[in-house]
Order: sequence, then C-alpha cells, then structure tokens
Amino acid sequence: MTAPGLLIVISGPSGTGKGTICQSLLKRRPDIFLSVSATTRSPRAGEIDGVHYHFRDRETFEEMIARDEFFEWAQVYDNYYGTPKGPVNTALAEGKDVLLEIDVQGALKIKKKAPDGIYIFVVPPSLDALRARITGRGTDSVEVINKRMNKAMEELAYLHEYDYIVINDILEEAVHRAESIIMAEQSRTGRFRIINDGRSDRPLVAAR
Amino acid sequence: MTAPGLLIVISGPSGTGKGTICQSLLKRRPDIFLSVSATTRSPRAGEIDGVHYHFRDRETFEEMIARDEFFEWAQVYDNYYGTPKGPVNTALAEGKDVLLEIDVQGALKIKKKAPDGIYIFVVPPSLDALRARITGRGTDSVEVINKRMNKAMEELAYLHEYDYIVINDILEEAVHRAESIIMAEQSRTGRFRIINDGRSDRPLVAAR
Repeated sequence: MTAPGLLIVISGPSGTGKGTICQSLLKRRPDIFLSVSATTRSPRAGEIDGVHYHFRDRETFEEMIARDEFFEWAQVYDNYYGTPKGPVNTALAEGKDVLLEIDVQGALKIKKKAPDGIYIFVVPPSLDALRARITGRGTDSVEVINKRMNKAMEELAYLHEYDYIVINDILEEAVHRAESIIMAEQSRTGRFRIINDGRSDRPLVAAR
Repeated sequence: MTAPGLLIVISGPSGTGKGTICQSLLKRRPDIFLSVSATTRSPRAGEIDGVHYHFRDRETFEEMIARDEFFEWAQVYDNYYGTPKGPVNTALAEGKDVLLEIDVQGALKIKKKAPDGIYIFVVPPSLDALRARITGRGTDSVEVINKRMNKAMEELAYLHEYDYIVINDILEEAVHRAESIIMAEQSRTGRFRIINDGRSDRPLVAAR
C-alpha cells in the first residue's frame, strides 16, 4: 500500500506571479508532479503536447466533459480549457504530490471536488506592485490594465476560501514559504500510522 | 493592535531528542520566546534563575497553583514542576511565537487549556535508536532502561493527539521540518485580513 500524495493547488489573481513560484518550486522539488491542463486551442510555436498543454480537438474535449473527466473546465472565447482528473488521480494514488496552478475561479471549482487538497493563495505585496506586474506584461491599454486590476481586487475577496496565504514580494521567500507549507502538510499526524511489527530496527511510524 | 503569536508545543517521549531540536530551533530562530518552567527543586551548579528554571520555594509555588497560574503542573517525588501562564501569555500578546518543550503528560494537559496551540510530537526513527539514546545517557541498569522504553512506547500511543509528527533521525532535517511547520502555521489564511485603506503602496493583506 502506498500513501496517497498531496494535492497542492497554487492559485491567485493574474499578475501575482503564481506561475513563477510554481516553476521555481518544481526546480527545487522535482519529485512533485505538475498537472497539465487540456485545451482545444492550437499549439503555439514551441509548445509541446503533454508538456505545456494536452492539445485535444473539440469533439474529444466534449466527450471528456460528458464522461466527467475534468476537475473543472471553462470556455474562454472559442476554446475550452480544463484540468483532467486522470493524470492527477493516478499520480496521487502512486504517492506523488501533485501541483496544480490555476486561476481563482478554477481553484474554487476544484475545491468542491477535492476538498482535501491544500489551497494556497498568492497575493501581491501591494496594489502598486500588482499594477507594475500587470503593466509590465506588454503594451496593453490603460483600460485593459484597469479591468485586470479590478478583476484582481474582486478575486482577492476569495482569499478566505484558501488554507494558506503566500505574499509574493521576494520570489525566493515566497517559494520557500510554499515549500514549507508542503513539508508541514506532509508532517500532519493524520498522515501517519504507528507500526507495531516487533522489528526494533524498523521505523516506528510511517505514512499511511 | 498586534497579531497574537503562535504557541508551539514540542513534545514526545524522553530519549527522542526533543530538547536538542528545541535548542537548534532557537539558535536558528532567535525571535522565538522559550517558555521556562518553574520548580521547587534547588538550582544545580551553573543553573540560572529565569534561564534554566524559575526557582521558587514551596510556599510560592503552592500560591501560584491556588491562583491558577500554571498551564500545567506536576509533583515529581518531593518537588513541583510547572509551566507558568504569565510569561507565555505576555509574549503571545506581544505577537511573539512561544516555544514550549514538555513531556507527553504535560502537553496533553496544556492542550486542554490552549487548544489553539500547535502540537508537535517528536518520534525516534526506531526502537533501537530510542534504546541507544536512553542507554547512552548514563550508567542506568537494564531494568531502569526497560522501564523507560516501556514508558516511551506507552506515550507513543498519544501521537494522534498531536497536530504534527517530526521523526528525529537526522537532527538537521528534524529541525528544518519543525521550522517549516512554524512557517506554514504563520501562513494560515485565518491569521490574515485584507487591508482596504486605499493606499496602493501598502500591503494588501496583513496579520490579524
């Protein structure tokens, strides 16, 4: 029997740097399995199927929806995006910890289906920092930037749906905090059982 | 208003090395306030009042018991030992995290009075390792060692009263794990509030 892994959901408004935190976390913890989203949109140059996305045609995606194969899915303009259950559940059953990076709406949907997951909310240090990051992305108009800022502020209100807060001021510190949260969750008493096999040289407790 | 600190209780059977973990933790985190026990026993050579123990005479100790000034206290042979509430509560109110190292009986008593604390159970990696540590302490008889081993095994059964397990195999790893648990608990959503003061250069969230 293998102890099931932890489902770690890293979420937050766009522009908070949750993607960068996840990438750094995975570099430090290559044992963690990254959940890859499925989409019906076409691959961009350099995007690899199964790495950046699972690229699926519309018919296949809709069949997957019908078979309840997504933790969550959404339609954005003409394309579907979703989080397939299969690879996540397989990895968890194998005892691997699974990392899932997702927006706030997606995270709230996943929480309903997987309430035992660990939900981490990434917060920008200040509104100015958030605006700088959103602005720094490209050449968007003030209107578009303001719209994103408003959306981010709305999403901030869902903070209390999450288990943990990580303020992303200094990246290294934010990654260290996320790593600590994972380590602490791995140390929860409920994940252990006492071994009583009379072997004095063997572990006294082990993961369930 | 200052956010209250965390009460961190590190406990476990004797011989598990919880004292060494606490000492290492305090070296790495000098911001943590160590709770000092009170006792009626006489100071040994080199022991300083207020550092190793609060040395009190019997009458004073009994008055403190009568005034409910202990989280827990116990009589061991002719002497009293106890955990005074005052310094712990003062430090917590000032926003300091407080570390309390205590045996299993004491920790269970404290948990009744302070259920919001973080209870960490230190476990030896194996029975052989536990025996080696208990034996290594001095020149005790096999009988005394067996008695201690049995007591440790009895205490191990209380593991599920605790929030977290730290297996003390390699000291550095055990200390790192304890530190991660503290960091994760500091990151719990319930400890934060959203700040909405219209100042875009200031933190968006802060400790309660």
